[in-house]
Formats: sequence, structure tokens, C-alpha cells
Amino acid sequence: MRFVNNRAEDVNIAYIGGGSRGWAWAFMGDLALEESMSGTVRLYDTNFTAAKDNEIIGNRLLDHPGSRGKWVYKAVESIREALTGADFVVISILPGTLDAMALDVHEPERYGIRQPVGDTVGPGGIVRALRTIPIFAGFAEAIRKYCPEAWVMNYTNPMALCTRALYEVFPGIRAFGCCHEVFFTQKLLCEALREIMGIDGVTREEIKTNVLGINHFTWIDRAYYRNMDLMPVYKTFVDKHYEEGFEGNEKGHWINSVFGSANRVKFDLFRRYGVIAAAGDRHLSEFVPGDWYIASHEKWKFNLTPVSWRKKNQKDKIEKGKRLLSGEESFELRPSGEEGVRQMKALLGLDELFTNVNLPNRGQMEGVPLGSVVETNAHFSGDSVRPVMAGRLPDPVQNLVVRHIYNNETVLRAALNRDREMALRAFVNDPLVNLSLEDARALLDSMIRNTAKWLPGWEI
Amino acid sequence: MRFVNNRAEDVNIAYIGGGSRGWAWAFMGDLALEESMSGTVRLYDTNFTAAKDNEIIGNRLLDHPGSRGKWVYKAVESIREALTGADFVVISILPGTLDAMALDVHEPERYGIRQPVGDTVGPGGIVRALRTIPIFAGFAEAIRKYCPEAWVMNYTNPMALCTRALYEVFPGIRAFGCCHEVFFTQKLLCEALREIMGIDGVTREEIKTNVLGINHFTWIDRAYYRNMDLMPVYKTFVDKHYEEGFEGNEKGHWINSVFGSANRVKFDLFRRYGVIAAAGDRHLSEFVPGDWYIASHEKWKFNLTPVSWRKKNQKDKIEKGKRLLSGEESFELRPSGEEGVRQMKALLGLDELFTNVNLPNRGQMEGVPLGSVVETNAHFSGDSVRPVMAGRLPDPVQNLVVRHIYNNETVLRAALNRDREMALRAFVNDPLVNLSLEDARALLDSMIRNTAKWLPGWEI
Amino acid sequence: MRFVNNRAEDVNIAYIGGGSRGWAWAFMGDLALEESMSGTVRLYDTNFTAAKDNEIIGNRLLDHPGSRGKWVYKAVESIREALTGADFVVISILPGTLDAMALDVHEPERYGIRQPVGDTVGPGGIVRALRTIPIFAGFAEAIRKYCPEAWVMNYTNPMALCTRALYEVFPGIRAFGCCHEVFFTQKLLCEALREIMGIDGVTREEIKTNVLGINHFTWIDRAYYRNMDLMPVYKTFVDKHYEEGFEGNEKGHWINSVFGSANRVKFDLFRRYGVIAAAGDRHLSEFVPGDWYIASHEKWKFNLTPVSWRKKNQKDKIEKGKRLLSGEESFELRPSGEEGVRQMKALLGLDELFTNVNLPNRGQMEGVPLGSVVETNAHFSGDSVRPVMAGRLPDPVQNLVVRHIYNNETVLRAALNRDREMALRAFVNDPLVNLSLEDARALLDSMIRNTAKWLPGWEI
Amino acid sequence: MRFVNNRAEDVNIAYIGGGSRGWAWAFMGDLALEESMSGTVRLYDTNFTAAKDNEIIGNRLLDHPGSRGKWVYKAVESIREALTGADFVVISILPGTLDAMALDVHEPERYGIRQPVGDTVGPGGIVRALRTIPIFAGFAEAIRKYCPEAWVMNYTNPMALCTRALYEVFPGIRAFGCCHEVFFTQKLLCEALREIMGIDGVTREEIKTNVLGINHFTWIDRAYYRNMDLMPVYKTFVDKHYEEGFEGNEKGHWINSVFGSANRVKFDLFRRYGVIAAAGDRHLSEFVPGDWYIASHEKWKFNLTPVSWRKKNQKDKIEKGKRLLSGEESFELRPSGEEGVRQMKALLGLDELFTNVNLPNRGQMEGVPLGSVVETNAHFSGDSVRPVMAGRLPDPVQNLVVRHIYNNETVLRAALNRDREMALRAFVNDPLVNLSLEDARALLDSMIRNTAKWLPGWEI
Repeated sequence: MRFVNNRAEDVNIAYIGGGSRGWAWAFMGDLALEESMSGTVRLYDTNFTAAKDNEIIGNRLLDHPGSRGKWVYKAVESIREALTGADFVVISILPGTLDAMALDVHEPERYGIRQPVGDTVGPGGIVRALRTIPIFAGFAEAIRKYCPEAWVMNYTNPMALCTRALYEVFPGIRAFGCCHEVFFTQKLLCEALREIMGIDGVTREEIKTNVLGINHFTWIDRAYYRNMDLMPVYKTFVDKHYEEGFEGNEKGHWINSVFGSANRVKFDLFRRYGVIAAAGDRHLSEFVPGDWYIASHEKWKFNLTPVSWRKKNQKDKIEKGKRLLSGEESFELRPSGEEGVRQMKALLGLDELFTNVNLPNRGQMEGVPLGSVVETNAHFSGDSVRPVMAGRLPDPVQNLVVRHIYNNETVLRAALNRDREMALRAFVNDPLVNLSLEDARALLDSMIRNTAKWLPGWEI
Repeated sequence: MRFVNNRAEDVNIAYIGGGSRGWAWAFMGDLALEESMSGTVRLYDTNFTAAKDNEIIGNRLLDHPGSRGKWVYKAVESIREALTGADFVVISILPGTLDAMALDVHEPERYGIRQPVGDTVGPGGIVRALRTIPIFAGFAEAIRKYCPEAWVMNYTNPMALCTRALYEVFPGIRAFGCCHEVFFTQKLLCEALREIMGIDGVTREEIKTNVLGINHFTWIDRAYYRNMDLMPVYKTFVDKHYEEGFEGNEKGHWINSVFGSANRVKFDLFRRYGVIAAAGDRHLSEFVPGDWYIASHEKWKFNLTPVSWRKKNQKDKIEKGKRLLSGEESFELRPSGEEGVRQMKALLGLDELFTNVNLPNRGQMEGVPLGSVVETNAHFSGDSVRPVMAGRLPDPVQNLVVRHIYNNETVLRAALNRDREMALRAFVNDPLVNLSLEDARALLDSMIRNTAKWLPGWEI
Repeated sequence: MRFVNNRAEDVNIAYIGGGSRGWAWAFMGDLALEESMSGTVRLYDTNFTAAKDNEIIGNRLLDHPGSRGKWVYKAVESIREALTGADFVVISILPGTLDAMALDVHEPERYGIRQPVGDTVGPGGIVRALRTIPIFAGFAEAIRKYCPEAWVMNYTNPMALCTRALYEVFPGIRAFGCCHEVFFTQKLLCEALREIMGIDGVTREEIKTNVLGINHFTWIDRAYYRNMDLMPVYKTFVDKHYEEGFEGNEKGHWINSVFGSANRVKFDLFRRYGVIAAAGDRHLSEFVPGDWYIASHEKWKFNLTPVSWRKKNQKDKIEKGKRLLSGEESFELRPSGEEGVRQMKALLGLDELFTNVNLPNRGQMEGVPLGSVVETNAHFSGDSVRPVMAGRLPDPVQNLVVRHIYNNETVLRAALNRDREMALRAFVNDPLVNLSLEDARALLDSMIRNTAKWLPGWEI
Repeated sequence: MRFVNNRAEDVNIAYIGGGSRGWAWAFMGDLALEESMSGTVRLYDTNFTAAKDNEIIGNRLLDHPGSRGKWVYKAVESIREALTGADFVVISILPGTLDAMALDVHEPERYGIRQPVGDTVGPGGIVRALRTIPIFAGFAEAIRKYCPEAWVMNYTNPMALCTRALYEVFPGIRAFGCCHEVFFTQKLLCEALREIMGIDGVTREEIKTNVLGINHFTWIDRAYYRNMDLMPVYKTFVDKHYEEGFEGNEKGHWINSVFGSANRVKFDLFRRYGVIAAAGDRHLSEFVPGDWYIASHEKWKFNLTPVSWRKKNQKDKIEKGKRLLSGEESFELRPSGEEGVRQMKALLGLDELFTNVNLPNRGQMEGVPLGSVVETNAHFSGDSVRPVMAGRLPDPVQNLVVRHIYNNETVLRAALNRDREMALRAFVNDPLVNLSLEDARALLDSMIRNTAKWLPGWEI
């Protein structure tokens, strides 16, 4: 990497999961739209063909009229090739396959456990973590070996545990996890500002929030627009929409959307605890007992995302990939809404950025075990990410959060040691696992057995 | 108080709840059996007649042939009279009545929630705490006013919260909470030692255990007889008795005993977590989801104690009291197994004692919020109780415990502020409250309504 | 305060010490130069005439051609009037008089103790704190009463202790302390960047530093320009200039300047500890034993500032004030280099700012007592100042710093309780107080006696 | 090791420094006097002949009429032989020789630095630590290899750093450090009790003290006999003897004793800080600036121990050894006053013990860096040593102590990395090193050069 005329050139990015269709394309687009950087992106994927396709799609952007940053894409066959010399490492993988995910999400239904997402906590999240953590342990080893100074940006779920595993294996790693869920809540605050105060045209970046919690179960205890306290504004907004929910400008009614919701869970949590839950309702509902929201999700107006939908969506994207590859469809350049490229820019010292990320707790979240990965605001500047002191959650919310933090530590141990009994200790303590001890064991056993091929080293 | 010939004379004890029939008599007996102290016990009770009866029963001990410590008992009509000049304050009260307790324990059954005890956590424990904490707040104020330097020994449940309330209101108080549950586990270890190692005649005091957790959900992570590690001994013992349970020398089979158990819950928790749960099975089962043990308590071989039994028992004791009063029955002097008198002796500097007590966490339990009341070992000597560093619980157990610690803090807040919404935040997060949010609210509301007369200051 | 067209109007500022000639004028200038705010500044000073003069000088700025922010100045006779309705409170006072300061600084010379500044630590700093802390205790009480929600910006020394006293008396206060010393070090890094790397034109704001320590004894352990690590750059710079020092573009040779230095102390500390001391050499030298630098200050190329100079300077400013008042001299509008107005702008939500301030430690500085005031970076945004996790100093530097932190806590106690023995405990442990215990006591006694009139409530 | 009739037989003790004449004989005597244990002591020493002599002396005790515990002594030629199979490891060595110590203690005198002892802190203590820590690092490695479960008792100075080094290299070690200095202060409290209260015949074990600080700079903030608070008693005692000092029943006047003192330093520190300094005056005086006490040690009535005296004493002991060996002199059996054997007994589960020891801080001393070795009370029982929560020192005392704690950490780093600059960072911050930076460096350099032969691996 070198600076030429206030631009960073020859930036080296390793993209692990470089054959991805969703995240990779979004990232390519953001890179192309940012004029202050250029360089090379090495695409590594266990599916080399997919990476190769993305190489072609990516390089075609060089000729795109809207393309301001110039990037060369190159699919590589080994992680060593991807990482050597990297300034940045982006990790966005699907651990296992959607078949595995289907087992994570739907097997527990046999015991009456439904999961709107199933990739973070709950039976699905735990078993997904068991197969993902060893993969991330491998990434950490490789990064230590090939690019120990690189900045590592993780987009993979379960976010907290993937990031935690990187630090467990290579404590000196410079990694953080990124997620856009908080952004949507900031947008919701823009809606409240518009509707309650009549202030229009405010962007989510103008809403200043103090963020604390864990990924997908993140909370906001202070929100400001200028020096206007948004907590009472949000309260009025919640009171107004509590019964019917607020669907805002999301395309289509939540009923027809596997991702949509009417924010009723968010509103109810606000009423109960006085702080703003800052993730989608589908995610939030998974961190609390199933009887609270999931059991009556229609009433609470959110959907459970079937993995069949993900499979269909994957197929659509593969088709779209073919069209992009053949030139039949042209790449539409537009900001993805993700902050990865802005974070890179700040880490290169071209900008400053203050946003929420996932990092090991060093005290930024008071009263929470040190070392565990939490989500709070941080300050990004040249070669530096420093968490901001976020204070502490109200005790009743802390209690909901800490339960998952300790569970995460237990799952980490289980995954690294291939220890089924340890996994069970986390499993039975998950709020969604509302079972007798026998049933819990039986379910975990069958989930592990079902996904055995993605669990190398386990005695099954 | 003064020392004469290595004896402490004129010791002043205030007994709050001095009309009690169980604890007070046990305490009177222990006092009489200890030769190194004598003095006055002032009995204060909202039921003055009961205190007066105990005055007579107690003073009669002066003439008991086995009586070595000489104590004068005096029923007093105000707490001021009881406390003024006290060296020690003993608190052992029934908050509310058994009718209130019946509502605590049995009302939740309408929602399918069964409680073996119902006085610590769970719906019953929480509502009991709501009415007890303000009473203890009053005690703390009175102690600050009348005897700020006295040592205060609490025997009332919910133990952790009663003790916590004392410190919240009067941070300089010198209070601790006492409970005998750990002693029974030490006795169980004696049984294991006898049965597995063939070592007989060992007393529970010879079993050295490291204790940590919260009252009634206390754990032992190290147990030694001499320098013999008892963890593998206990493991063998548990393996041997896991299926059938161990009933030992307790009188009568557990089926006929509302307090008995076959220790199967204790054994199962040991198998799951590798550390020894150190309380009775009825208590332990209340700290975890009802589906784990309570739902199949016959299988796990323990009973739920109906409050009707407590009423019957109370009636029996009242009868016994009459007989003691009339002299029809004579007071049987024998050690109660409680440590209160030994603790007093140590605090007077006549002895040293190393035992488990309930104290605010100052770091003795690692990773647990400071200030919350925990149960660990402590060292008693002249005018001093100091907790011993107990280390930390394994993460999965810590998770089970911390949930109740935060819940306790939330209940404390709710009780002191008469805040129903705050109470609900703890209520819905209790492992036994396996309900929809609506049902949880409805249950709490009805429980508060039912016990309204013991909840002064609440808007009901 | 209200927003009109993206501008904050009717902002209310209370200026305590509003008769000041230096800070007040600088602040007036910065306010006038900032176009996004306007409002009223109420000037309160124990010297009402001086405040009145500044009212006239300030209001004249309304007509100044370069004036973009419109501010009305008003001298008020009571602190109540100043504070009521204030959005911001600025505190910049001289505690006592320069005569008092002369006694602080020069009395210790009788015992061979020389002090380059004498307002932070050392005998002078300690005695200054004894008379300043009660004044700040009064400010804290008044702020609690009249404007508890106002943001309070302190510029008075001893910075850490003044700010600490505000929080001690009113824990809910929203106060922070501001100092420009770090800025000069950032400018020095700009010089190093120019000289060693040939990169010119970089401003201090572009130098990103991690700041930690206490005011006037602040340290930088990371410094970046873009993504260039400045630590090796600074090392080369220090090696080059170590022997002769670096005087840079400061006007005049340090010999003729009571404030100037050749940065040799800074360079030597860097060599010894590997981290950058970020304050002027005169300040730094006071935090370590006098034998290190002060005893040979000519060799280390810095001067001791005699209070006679300050008196002369004060006289000059009074003269200048007269000329400004009469219109004989016109107010020169130019940025002061201070950040107060930018901080206000950020707190009003008109900007974001990331800079170093003095705040109670909540964990931003690891391993340092909580509550004590430390200087680290913080993030300013709408109604919010949050410290950034600054990590920890290397142990040997931590040791130098912690000594003053505990001493500060001791001085605080001494000042609030008028406790001479407590003051002595801090005094004898100050690195400059290299005396026998008798001499130390004699010196402290005489210093207290000398400044008795500014020590109300002390038994002298 | 095995239990037979409540006695521990076949106990295996490794004695490192087993050729010692003072400590080893005292230990042999205590072992012989204790009837509940017997076994083997393997004596390892770099001076094998000395160990061999002690083997003969020790085995002769088997026939001593007063000998109740039966121990076989065996000199061994390798540390491996000593450690393999050991239940306990005792370490009591002289690091280097008395010639090295003479250089530690007397070389600094050339710069006006006098040291009463010179083995803990100060220039002598620091340089002694530099040569001792690598030796202890070796011990830790060997213990990890040959007897990782053994209990390790260190008697070697610098106590805190030797113990710290063991834990640094082998974190799982079960080591603690023992020192008798606190015992003497407890005896002094017995004197106060006798003289002020007229209570005679109390032993030091009956004085209950709360101990906190670091070895040789330990403090007592609570002292009780029975339930009598001894702080006011001690205050009266100090007031009475402040001017003249108290020499009590120590043999001979302090003037003629290189170890004696009149406790005037102890009394003065009590007056200054309100807590009891609990070590000999010679030690205490080394932890504070030389101008406080050492510079006028005759006035403060304590002596500096010249190393020539130690050499003479060593010679006397060698002579005594010859006489013991030849049988010319018979071994006098009497309790040494050390607690090592009682500690072993407690660790074997034959007793309980509550006493002060040196252990890494896990929170027993509040506000002090975790991991650093501190001295507080601990509870000894079967296979267990647990520190008791000791609370925190008053800030001004904490400040004096913490300075040495950080210095210790710095010396540890310097010794393990053979890093002279790191050593200098601790050196210049020692209170006794009241020198210019040049002189400090010159002194350290010459001290390192002088003791070069005991500093393998250093670039000198």
C-alpha cells in the first residue's frame, strides 16, 4: 500500500468467501464507488469456480462508467495466496451449506422450537457455532502466519462467536465484526423524528446513538439528533404504533416478507425495559423465551425465515451471477449501506469514523466478562480501532444479555474441544430450549449427528 | 459486655422475631449449652404474646440441669428497646403469615408453576421478597439508629435479598446471613467418605469445602478430608447412587417427608457440571427451569412442601409451646446444628471460626457484580468477619447463578420503590416463570393483589 | 437554546471568571469566529469591574467586521444569575491572587525546591489545590442548584483536582477539563513529520494520537498520520535533536522565554520509556524528582517561570484591557487554538469531535483507580462526551503517574476536610519534596500560614 | 505420603538450599518437635558438602530424646532428585554470595545511599533481584517438570519477587512465601496489651490482625485481642514511647545489635498514617525516602546491618556446623517461631491455620494490580491456601506501597529479559535512589558490572 496524491494505491484485500454472491457483490460495488482507494482483491473460496466467476464480474467493473476506485480481482486457490501481503482481510462465508442450515433451523421444530433465523443463538445458532468456530480457528492460524498485521473484518454469523474465536486462537489479531442491524434502528429513529417532530431528511448517520450489547441483541440507551434527546420522541412513536406496529417504507407488507416485521417486538421491549432494542424483530425474538414472541409471531407481526426461502434465493443469485458473468445483466453500482469500505478508508487514515462494531470487551461494556465479544461504538482512525466507553445496561437487560455471553463462552469451549457435554451445558440454558433435560440432550444429539459431516474431529 | 475469667458476661442480644417457635427455641438451646457466654436476650416480635411466652420458656432454662450459659430473656414491646445496647441482633421472622405464603406458593399452580419451597426465587420467592425487603429496610434504619456497631445475624428468607436490603439501607451495617444447607452437603460427603473409602466417624466440620454461589444455590468446587480430594470420591458415590438416589440416614423415606429427598437432583447437577450443588434438592430445583426437575419430581425423588403442611406444623409447635409454657413438657437441650452461637463466640474473640456465610460481594466471588449478596466461606474472629477468596464458578454454572443475582438486584429495586414494572422484569426472567408475557403479568398482578395487605405503599 | 436553520441560537453560556483578560478574550474571539451559534454570555467574577469591562469589550465585537457568531455579553453580580438557564458553564479563574501564587512557587525555594510552574503538583500545586478545591466545591453546589444539566468546561489549574472536586461534590455533574498541552506535542509531531519524512503542511488535527495519563503529565503511546506510524519517525527526530534540543518555530530562544523549552525533557523521557510525554517540559519536570531535570534546567534547556513575570504580564494585560475598552486598540479576531467552542458545537449536535479531555476514570485508563480524573481521548457529539478506551501505560510510566493520582486523592480529602495531616501525607510523597520529614512539615506549615487568608475554615 | 493413625507418614520434602546453616537447622528442629508427621527431607544445595553435613546433622536428630517426628535426611546431587516425588518444596537460598551482597549494600554508599538491609528494595534489593529471579525461574521450570502438584514454600528474599517469578514462569505452581516480620509486630502488640491494659500472658497467636501490603512493608489496619480493639491501645502505647522508643525484651540495647531497633520508625509511621507498619524498622525505612529515617538512623534508633557482620555470622555458623557434625555440640531442640511446619501440617489436613503469607493478588488487596505478589492473611487447610479479603490501605499508604509493586513488576521484566534499561526504570524510581539520572545510571552500571559473574546472559 502506498499513498499517491491523498489516495491509497495498491491496497491488498483478501476476501475469504470470495465466491459469495450477496456480500461480495455489495462489497465490489462499494469499492468501485470509493475514489480514494485502489488495489487488488484476492478472492478465496472453497468453491473456486464461484471465486473465479466473481473475479470476472469484479474485473468487468474496471470498465464500468460509474467506477471511481480501480480494483483488480483475482481468484486464488489457497488461503496462503489470499492472505500473504494483505492489508485487509474480509471474511464472509457460509459455514457448511444451506442443507446444514436447514437442519439447524428446522430440526428443533420437532420439539416445538421455532426459530425465525437460527444463525446466532438458539439450537440453530449453537450448532452452527460448533461447526463455524473451528473454521475460524483455522483462519486465525493462517492470519497469524501470513498477515499478522492485517485488519480483519468479519461478516459471518454467529458474529460474536466467530470474532471471539479469532481472538481466542490469535490474541494479537486485529479483527472486528460488522453488522448492519443497528443501522436499521437508526433509520427507524429517523422515521420517528419525521413523524413525531416533523423533521424530515435526516440520515441515519446523523442519529447519534450509544450502542451496547451483543450482536443481534444490541441496545441503545441514548439517541440524539443534534442535541435533541430522541428517547422521549421514540416513546411517543412507540405509544402511537404499539398496537398496530410500524412498517414504514419497507417494501411490501411483513406478511409477504421473510425478513420484514412491524417492529412490534422492538416496541414491546422498549416498553418493558426503557431502552431501545437495536436489531430486527426476528433476531431479537430469538434471545428471549419462545413464549414471549415467537410462539405468537403473527400477532407480533414478524415472520420466521424458512431455509427453503434461502435456497430459493441462493438459486436466484446463482442465476443472476450467470447473467452478470455473460454480460446479459449489467452490474448496478449503488451504495450497499454497509460500512466496510468506509472502515477501510478510516483505517488507512483517509477519514475518521465513529460507528458500532464487535470487539472483545476490555471494559467498554461495564459489568460484562472481559474478553467476550460485545458490540459497542468504536472510533476508527489511521491503523486504529478503539472502543468507546459505553457504560452499562440496566440490570434487567444486562441479565438477558449476560446469559448469552456466558453461553457463548461455553459454546466456544465446546467447539474448540469437540466437547458434547460442554455444548449441552450451553444448549439447555438457551432461552429457546424450553425442554426437559432428556429432550434437550436428544435434540442436541440428533442435530450434531445430522450435521456430522461438517463437524470433523467430533466423536459422533 | 465484659470479660470475666475468659468468659463473656452481660452479652446483649436482640432477637427480632423473638416469638418464633422453631428458630428461637433452637437458639435458646444452643445458648444454654455454651458455657463461655452469658447475658440477656431481648425478644421482640410483632406478636408480643408469643415473645412473652418465649420469655417464660427461656428463663425456665436457667434452672435446667444441662444449662451452662446463663441467659435472662425479656420480651420487649418496641424494636427500640430490643436494639438499644445490643451486641448482637438476630433476625428470624416470618414475613407476613402462612396465609400469605400459601398464596406465594400455590397461586402460581393455576398457571402450571409448581414450587417445592417458594421462599427464595420463583414467583413465590419474588413476591415474598417484595413484602420482606421493606421490613428489612426498617430493621436497617433502626439498627443504624440504636446499635450501629452490633453484629447482625439474619436467618430469614429470602436470605440473599434480606441481607442485601440491610446493606442497601445502611451500608455500614455489620450483618451476615446464616444458612445450614451447606452443612447437609458436608454430611453427605461424610457418607460418601464412609461408603466409598471406608472412613467412618468423620464429622461435617472435618470436611473442608470451598463454597461459592448464592444462598440455596450454593456450590462446592473443592472438598477435602485431611488432604484427600473428595471430588473423585463423590464422583464414585454419585455414580453408584445416581439411578436410585441416596437417602442415607434421614428419617423415613422421602415420599413421606415434605423436606426429604434422595439427592438425585444434586447428583444430576454434579454429573452435568462437575461441581457439587450444596443445598437441598427442593431448593436447587427452583433455580433452574421447571422442566428440568420439578415437573417430574417423583422421578427425581423429592417432594414439594405444601403450605398446608407448614400450617399444620405451626399448629403443632403452638401446642408444644403451650406445653413448654405450662411445664407439661420439658425443654430438651441439644445442639441445633446451627452455628449462630459459635459465630457469636468467635466474634467475641473467644474462638476462631471458618464457615460459609452470606455477605455482599467485595471480590470474594470473581466475575460477579460487587455488592450483591453471595455465599462463600469467611473467617470469624474478634469483631471481624472476612470473606475468603472463593475464586470463580465454571462459566455454565456462573451463568445459572448470575441470572438470579441480577434478578435479585431487580427485585430489590422493585421492592424499595414499590415498582410493579420493575418487579415484572425480574418475574419474567425467573426460570420457573415459563409463561407468555401476558400470563406472567396476570400472575404477578394477582399475586400482588392477593397479598396486598402485606404490601403497604403499593398502588394495587 | 433553539435551532434555526442549522444554527443554534439563544445559547446561554455562564462564564465564571468572566473578568479574566487572557482566557476570556480568547474565548470571545473563538465565539465570534464561529458562525453556527449565537446567544448570551453571562460574565461572573469576584472582580465585578473586570467582568463589566469584558462585557463592554465583548459587546463591541457585535460590530466587528469579522464577527460571524453574534453574542451578547452581560456582567452579572451573582453566580446564581450567571448559572440560571445556562447551557454551558465555562470556569477559568485564578484561585487566590498572584501574591498567593508567588508564595506557592517561591517559598519552597528556601528549602531548595524550585518549581518551573508550581500550579499542578509539587508544593505549589498542592497548596494551590488546598485553596482551589473548596471554591470548586462551591461551584459544584451552585451548578447542582441552578443548572444541573449544563455542560461544564473547566480551564482552571490544578486541572485534575478542580474537575475531581466538581464530581466529588455533585456526582451527576456533566463536567470535563480542557487543556492545550497535548496540542503542542501534536504540533511537534508535525515538525518531525516534516523534517524526517519531508511531509509538509500537516495540521495537528491530522495527527491521531492515543492519549493517556493525567493533565500536564499526559502520554502518547500511539501516533499516526494517515496510516503511518509516527513512533519510529519521532524516534529518529529525537535521536537527531537529543543533544541540542529542538526549538522549532517558537518565537525567540527558550532562554528569553519563560514558557519556552527545547523539548529536551520530552526527548529524554521518550528515550527512557519509549512513549511520548505530551506536555511542556516545564510541566513534565515537576512530576518527577527535582534532581532529574529541574536541578539542571539550563542544561535541559527550559526555564522556571517566576511569578514576577506573571505579575508583569498581568499588568500588561490590564493595560491592554484599558485600550480595548477605550477603543484605542481594536480586538484582533483570530482562532485561539483552544477547542472550547468546537466542543460546544459538538455538544449542540452541530459537529462531532474526537479529542483529549479530563474526566473521571470509568475504565478508560486501565489499572488506575476509578473516579480519579485522567486525561484521555473522548468522543463529543450531541449532548454527549464519552471517553475512549485508552489502554494502559507501560508499568514504569504507570508508576510515575499513579503516584500523583493517589496524591491527588489525598489532597482532595485534605482540602475538603481542612485536614493538615492529610495534606502532609500527600506533601511528603511528592517527588519534588525531597526533604526530611521535619523540613517537609515546616515548609507545608509555613505555606499554609502564608496563604491563610485564602484558606477559610482552616485552623492555622 | 500416607496417613497412619492420624499421622502423616512418608512425607517427602525437598529442601532447596539444603546446605543452609540458619534456616535449615531451624526447620529441622521444628520438624523434630512435631509429632504428627514423619518422612524424608532431601537436601539440595549448590554446595553439596554443606548439604551432606546437614544430612548427618539431621539424621542425628532421629536419636535425639526430644525428637517426636522421625525424619530421614538425604543430601542429593541434582534438583531432579530433590524434587521428584516431593509433597513439599522449601526454598531458602542465598542468591550469589555474601561478597555479592556486600556489593549490593555498600556500593551505593559511594553515592550517599545507605541501606539497613539491602535485600528487598533499594539499589541492593533491585540488583539482588536481578540475579535471583533467573534462579527462581529455573526452580519453577524444574518444579513444573518434577513435582507440579507440590506445595512450594519460599523463604528467600526478595520475597515478593522470588514468589512472583515462580508464578510468572509456572502459573499453575502452588507456591507461597513466608516471613516472620509480622509476628514481631504481633508480639509488640502483646507488649502494648500488657503495658497499657495490664493484660499479661497473651501470645502473638492470640492477637488477630488484618494484614495487607507487601513483604517487609506490610501493614495492619485492624488488630484485636478477643473483641478488644487494639488500635487505641497501640495509640496510647505509641504516644507513651514515641520519643524514647520501645526496646522491650530484646536482648541488649539496639545500639549493639545489627538487627535491633527501638521501633521508633514504626511508631512514627503509625502517627503519620494511622495504621500499623508491620515489619522491622530496618526494613520499613528502606521503602521510603532515605531522608525520612535512614539519614538519621541513630536518632530513629535503628542500625544498618553491615555485610561484614553477616560474614562474621556466617563464619560462626560454619564453626557451629562443624561442632554439630562432630557431636562436639548437641542440637538444641526448640521451636523456631517460624510457621513452616504448621503450614505443612495444615496442608496435610491435620490442622487449620489462619496466618499471613505472600501470594499473587487475586483481589485480596483491593486497588492493587492483579498478579503482583502481596502479603495478606490466608486460610490453610487440607491441600488449600486461600487468601482472605483484606480490603484496601488508606490512599496515602497505598501510594507508598503501589510504588514498589510497580517497581517489582518492572524488575521482574528486567531480570527475565536481561534488560538493563528496564532495570534502570525501576532503579530511578526507588525512593532510596535520590540521585541525578546520570548518577543513577552510573551506579546501576557499576553494580551490575561488579556482580557480573552472578548475572549470566547479561551483556555487561
